[in-house]
Amino acid sequence: MHGYTHLFIPGPTNVPEPVRRAMNLPQEDMRAPDFADFVTPLLADLKKVFRTESGRVFVFPSSGTGMWEAAMTNTLSPGDRVLMARFGQFSHLWMDMAERLGLEVDLVEVEWGKGTPVDVFAERLAADGEHRIRAVCVTHNETATGVTSDVAAVRAALDAAGHPAMLFVDGVSSIASIEFEMDEWGVDCAVAGSQKGFMMPAGLGLLGVSRKALEASASATSRRCFFSFDDMIKLNDTGYFPYTPATQLLRGLRVAVDMLLEETMEGVWARHRRLAEGVRTAVAAWEGCELVSAGEEWRSDTVSAIYVPEGVDAVRVINTAYEKYHTSLGSGLARLAGRVFRIGHLGSLNPVMLCGAISAAEMALLDCGAQIVPGSGVAAAIGHFRATTPDNRIQLRKSA
Amino acid sequence: MHGYTHLFIPGPTNVPEPVRRAMNLPQEDMRAPDFADFVTPLLADLKKVFRTESGRVFVFPSSGTGMWEAAMTNTLSPGDRVLMARFGQFSHLWMDMAERLGLEVDLVEVEWGKGTPVDVFAERLAADGEHRIRAVCVTHNETATGVTSDVAAVRAALDAAGHPAMLFVDGVSSIASIEFEMDEWGVDCAVAGSQKGFMMPAGLGLLGVSRKALEASASATSRRCFFSFDDMIKLNDTGYFPYTPATQLLRGLRVAVDMLLEETMEGVWARHRRLAEGVRTAVAAWEGCELVSAGEEWRSDTVSAIYVPEGVDAVRVINTAYEKYHTSLGSGLARLAGRVFRIGHLGSLNPVMLCGAISAAEMALLDCGAQIVPGSGVAAAIGHFRATTPDNRIQLRKSA
Amino acid sequence: MHGYTHLFIPGPTNVPEPVRRAMNLPQEDMRAPDFADFVTPLLADLKKVFRTESGRVFVFPSSGTGMWEAAMTNTLSPGDRVLMARFGQFSHLWMDMAERLGLEVDLVEVEWGKGTPVDVFAERLAADGEHRIRAVCVTHNETATGVTSDVAAVRAALDAAGHPAMLFVDGVSSIASIEFEMDEWGVDCAVAGSQKGFMMPAGLGLLGVSRKALEASASATSRRCFFSFDDMIKLNDTGYFPYTPATQLLRGLRVAVDMLLEETMEGVWARHRRLAEGVRTAVAAWEGCELVSAGEEWRSDTVSAIYVPEGVDAVRVINTAYEKYHTSLGSGLARLAGRVFRIGHLGSLNPVMLCGAISAAEMALLDCGAQIVPGSGVAAAIGHFRATTPDNRIQLRKSA
Amino acid sequence: MHGYTHLFIPGPTNVPEPVRRAMNLPQEDMRAPDFADFVTPLLADLKKVFRTESGRVFVFPSSGTGMWEAAMTNTLSPGDRVLMARFGQFSHLWMDMAERLGLEVDLVEVEWGKGTPVDVFAERLAADGEHRIRAVCVTHNETATGVTSDVAAVRAALDAAGHPAMLFVDGVSSIASIEFEMDEWGVDCAVAGSQKGFMMPAGLGLLGVSRKALEASASATSRRCFFSFDDMIKLNDTGYFPYTPATQLLRGLRVAVDMLLEETMEGVWARHRRLAEGVRTAVAAWEGCELVSAGEEWRSDTVSAIYVPEGVDAVRVINTAYEKYHTSLGSGLARLAGRVFRIGHLGSLNPVMLCGAISAAEMALLDCGAQIVPGSGVAAAIGHFRATTPDNRIQLRKSA
Repeated sequence: MHGYTHLFIPGPTNVPEPVRRAMNLPQEDMRAPDFADFVTPLLADLKKVFRTESGRVFVFPSSGTGMWEAAMTNTLSPGDRVLMARFGQFSHLWMDMAERLGLEVDLVEVEWGKGTPVDVFAERLAADGEHRIRAVCVTHNETATGVTSDVAAVRAALDAAGHPAMLFVDGVSSIASIEFEMDEWGVDCAVAGSQKGFMMPAGLGLLGVSRKALEASASATSRRCFFSFDDMIKLNDTGYFPYTPATQLLRGLRVAVDMLLEETMEGVWARHRRLAEGVRTAVAAWEGCELVSAGEEWRSDTVSAIYVPEGVDAVRVINTAYEKYHTSLGSGLARLAGRVFRIGHLGSLNPVMLCGAISAAEMALLDCGAQIVPGSGVAAAIGHFRATTPDNRIQLRKSA
Repeated sequence: MHGYTHLFIPGPTNVPEPVRRAMNLPQEDMRAPDFADFVTPLLADLKKVFRTESGRVFVFPSSGTGMWEAAMTNTLSPGDRVLMARFGQFSHLWMDMAERLGLEVDLVEVEWGKGTPVDVFAERLAADGEHRIRAVCVTHNETATGVTSDVAAVRAALDAAGHPAMLFVDGVSSIASIEFEMDEWGVDCAVAGSQKGFMMPAGLGLLGVSRKALEASASATSRRCFFSFDDMIKLNDTGYFPYTPATQLLRGLRVAVDMLLEETMEGVWARHRRLAEGVRTAVAAWEGCELVSAGEEWRSDTVSAIYVPEGVDAVRVINTAYEKYHTSLGSGLARLAGRVFRIGHLGSLNPVMLCGAISAAEMALLDCGAQIVPGSGVAAAIGHFRATTPDNRIQLRKSA
Repeated sequence: MHGYTHLFIPGPTNVPEPVRRAMNLPQEDMRAPDFADFVTPLLADLKKVFRTESGRVFVFPSSGTGMWEAAMTNTLSPGDRVLMARFGQFSHLWMDMAERLGLEVDLVEVEWGKGTPVDVFAERLAADGEHRIRAVCVTHNETATGVTSDVAAVRAALDAAGHPAMLFVDGVSSIASIEFEMDEWGVDCAVAGSQKGFMMPAGLGLLGVSRKALEASASATSRRCFFSFDDMIKLNDTGYFPYTPATQLLRGLRVAVDMLLEETMEGVWARHRRLAEGVRTAVAAWEGCELVSAGEEWRSDTVSAIYVPEGVDAVRVINTAYEKYHTSLGSGLARLAGRVFRIGHLGSLNPVMLCGAISAAEMALLDCGAQIVPGSGVAAAIGHFRATTPDNRIQLRKSA
Repeated sequence: MHGYTHLFIPGPTNVPEPVRRAMNLPQEDMRAPDFADFVTPLLADLKKVFRTESGRVFVFPSSGTGMWEAAMTNTLSPGDRVLMARFGQFSHLWMDMAERLGLEVDLVEVEWGKGTPVDVFAERLAADGEHRIRAVCVTHNETATGVTSDVAAVRAALDAAGHPAMLFVDGVSSIASIEFEMDEWGVDCAVAGSQKGFMMPAGLGLLGVSRKALEASASATSRRCFFSFDDMIKLNDTGYFPYTPATQLLRGLRVAVDMLLEETMEGVWARHRRLAEGVRTAVAAWEGCELVSAGEEWRSDTVSAIYVPEGVDAVRVINTAYEKYHTSLGSGLARLAGRVFRIGHLGSLNPVMLCGAISAAEMALLDCGAQIVPGSGVAAAIGHFRATTPDNRIQLRKSA
């Protein structure tokens, strides 16, 4: 196969060249005297990405799924009650894990296309006078439906109710991509993975943990060992890890974090918004296509889930894009299978790449019988991209 | 900068991942006992790319320019007459070199946009009863104008005239991309560089040489040393080189040649034709834009040189594509500066990449005042690409 | 710093060039239609490395520690009894984990320098008429002391006692390095990590699981989710994973497994034995130095733990090797700290690399006051290496 | 094959990891508006390595051999007289090139093992009242024999004679390794290649040129085109190149030059001296072995050419090192074939690597019948390396 493989799934995302280069290295001694000189600032800088000063960030050789487990087993005990909402495949899986870990799930079912129901959560919290709810769980960005929830509003609801529950956020497809404020929003456990906004290969789970969550771990009786905060803290505080860390990935993460911080988190969020708008503009131009997200307030800047026109098979669209056009799109999950395809627009992307993705989607849609106007999506997107080029790019070279 | 840099100049071209990976290696001993086991088959396989059985191929740490010099200094003597035509910047530079090397150039000026004037060449050859013309030079693909010449027809003219002159071909942007038949066309020196159809970084010059050219080198008195055929032959015949070869590049070349031969040269040529047609379809859809090539018979499958609409500054278009859209287009050279931009469509590319390139060109053209219809180029191109997907791609996965 | 960093810790080990190259790649779609074509044969080939036909091998984004946990939580229930021996830091940590996971540990303390006490185990098993012991745990290669245990003998003891307990083996620093026969020895859970004999960066845990262990998982009540066999089996059977796999590492693992199988496991084991003997020969030549392993039967072919001479500070030796000589040696762990350094001789190494390691150790020992004869270790080792070059190497090139 | 391939030839040398990483990149647009921002400082910094302020440095896609040709064809005319000495294979080849380029060579034959005969040169210069000698050529470091000449003394001889001849230096295996002072020594053409002290793959020729040489090029009538100074200057002065430069190699060169300048050239020279002494100490300890260099004043710090003991076949030693021990040593060239092997000790090396090389040489020598004491070379070398560790290394980490 010639040329790039076009990767527009909502993670893993495209690894930037400097990150890729940084991982092209021989193995190293993770107990060397100077290894701590590498680890300590990395862990400190990760806090800046999570936007926490008071908390800390753990890095496990794992995945986002592992971080869900780490968050729950370190801070909760079997039988503890958690408040959750289900509105997509990933919020479903998290709920499923909570049950399997022996937690008692207070589940709110929500129409897919919407996100965390802040008002219902507020009611439940208000009604929970005994404070039996130990944690409120928010899937910040439901990757299956392209829906972003309002974490700050959940925090406000907790505060309004004077409720002491912890606030857990699945930020796998939001952290390092869209606005996330761990301290400001009072998030106690913030779950992330390396292969999304961090622009890294999969293989690392990242977990932001507040002081409150750390304190909770003292009394939590869920069994954990590999994911134990205590073991990790003891060694991290010296600049090392309790077991062999994935040093190759950590070296890549170092460069990725440098890139994020250099751009500033606000810059990262703005970039994602801009690219997302380009995709949404294209979708709006495709007759018969529609976003799964049920309104502007829910639209995700990291992934768009798109209903194909009536009579079109979304699975065929995705396979056609892959087989004929070298392009990976995300599939519709669970109840959305066959009706939805997804375009991931998070991580290290730029407008021309998205024009390629939109072109590929158009070709596949047309091949599968959609009656869209050829070029309509691209025409819309290039209008958006032309109008929104950041100033710093244009002025990059005064002399040109 | 995030995401890929989009490279659509007519060389250097995009290096395929397997080639890139092959060059990520420690240095090696170019005099090791088993190094010849690597070199000998590589040189043999290069002949298959050049389509020669009777000739041989040299690889120098150099460039296409160096190969022009190697061809001329090894086979000609100062004062020798060469028949050349000038119809673009590269045919001009080759002629300039010939003069500087002390050759007597019989130059035919041709309108830019057309290529080698076979009929004029035929006349000159017929008129050259004394056979003073020692070599006929054909710029197979004039990269500046996107014009391909008919080498076979020049051979026919030589044969018709019964003229013994050698036939030299500048195949820098044609060999390994579009049809080239060294033996069948009786080419005596075929000049190529690593950074075009060979899908490699720049740094290697490749030169196909016929037996006739090798024989000519016995009596040619132009001074040469670094580029000497004799030195190279003596060592190449043992599987080694007369001076330290660029082993890293050779390892990449090995993989690139494997890719080409696996695809078959006919497959390579067909791929280039298909992608070129996609670009031309887009250009045709852009109001006010026009190919520099003066007719279908001249159109190059490796690069399209495109006149921008009246009143648009092509230099600004190119700079805008680069600064705002991360995309490298080729510039108009010499007399075409400011009026022309070029899209390179050779090497390891695929349709979605070209949709990106066309989108970038549209954005830049619009930004610079061109009155093209947004999306028109992409709409045209995706129609072409949808209709021409090779069967083997579609059937790649029966089960999908 | 110039030149190679010399890595002679007992893992992570040196990554071979082909493996390194294979990991230098863009990200890919782990749900692509053809991703299963990659996963299925990889999982099948891993079974050949573990030497099991009836069991299966799981690959988690994790570490060897994670695999200990996966083995225990999937097959055992809190309160279950496990028979373990402690004779080094890693057997200690495994025991510690068992306790934290709520298992009841029947612990046999063994002098450090020796390994699993087969006779004591046999007694305990024989005495356990009620079959309360649900699993017997063997640290195959205690990395802290350089001691290899006799797994086959433990299997024999189990069989002799007619005891149905499962047999768990920590093979982190043995599998893919020294003889390991999962089926033949009736091993039920075999724990490994990517960064040892698999010659990969850290980041993957590998776990061989027998049918018996899989059956046990049906009734085991320990909570697990991330490490759940069920989730993994369901997806692995289709060629996919339940959560985003570390595809970059899997691509490297593919090449590493190819290398192992091409060499044959018997060849891999012989290579490790040969290199280990070279190191042991050197240690024997160093006056005042001694292996921690308490006899020939315990000597590990993957790591040698070495007592420094009286009056020498092993920590200083290790730091000197690192600071002055660019060489990472393993440290003495827990009660061996300050008295022991370790040379890892597993993974992708060759004799000249080990001569470098021995030279570095000599320099560091001398710098720290050891009264060894300079060059004595190297002199001994080169005698061994000269005498034991495999025939296939010598005859690699008949023509040379 | 497992483990590193041990490369101890006098070039290509081992590429440092940061340089290797820098070359792992996609292709780029060598005519991009910002490419000059990369080229201009690189060319400026190369001057610091050559130690010239008044001259300039050219970089060609070529080799050291090409730079010999560039130097001579740009500054001399056929028939011009050059003063040269022959004392090894490379000084021989340079002389041979001079003759082939039509120069009149005033050749001084020197016993192999010695270098440029300053007194004889002084006589010839003094005797050349008509100043027919246009250039004096000095092979600074004769790679075949491991002999370094005294360039400063040749300059002094020129000055003493008041002779206006240019001074050409073959610095291929000296520049960026041992003391070289282009301006201070009044060198007019300084020839180098990327694959030696520059720690790069082969593929680039580097040429330092003084103002005097540039002026000479105005009247020199030797034909040149690819290697023309004029073409290069015209484009280099704008930050570009006259033909496609080997951008991948240039990106590596950027990092290599950064490393050299950070270390300071004095530091680079000291490092080479230290490592060379280690090898020489080992050679002195090997009974029956002897350096080809005929006295301390001639000893090269970049390569040692070593006579094997009587009765030993040096070719077999080299092949044995390669086949059995994975180690590339340099061979004896021309008249030294069979009697000499060479250890290259230039570029990015460190003491433990050289201990490996010495060990490999010992094993191969012993295998081929040499009666050396096993370990004797290593014992000597480690004494030297222990005693000479630079302070900055030891104090690298105060806390350790």
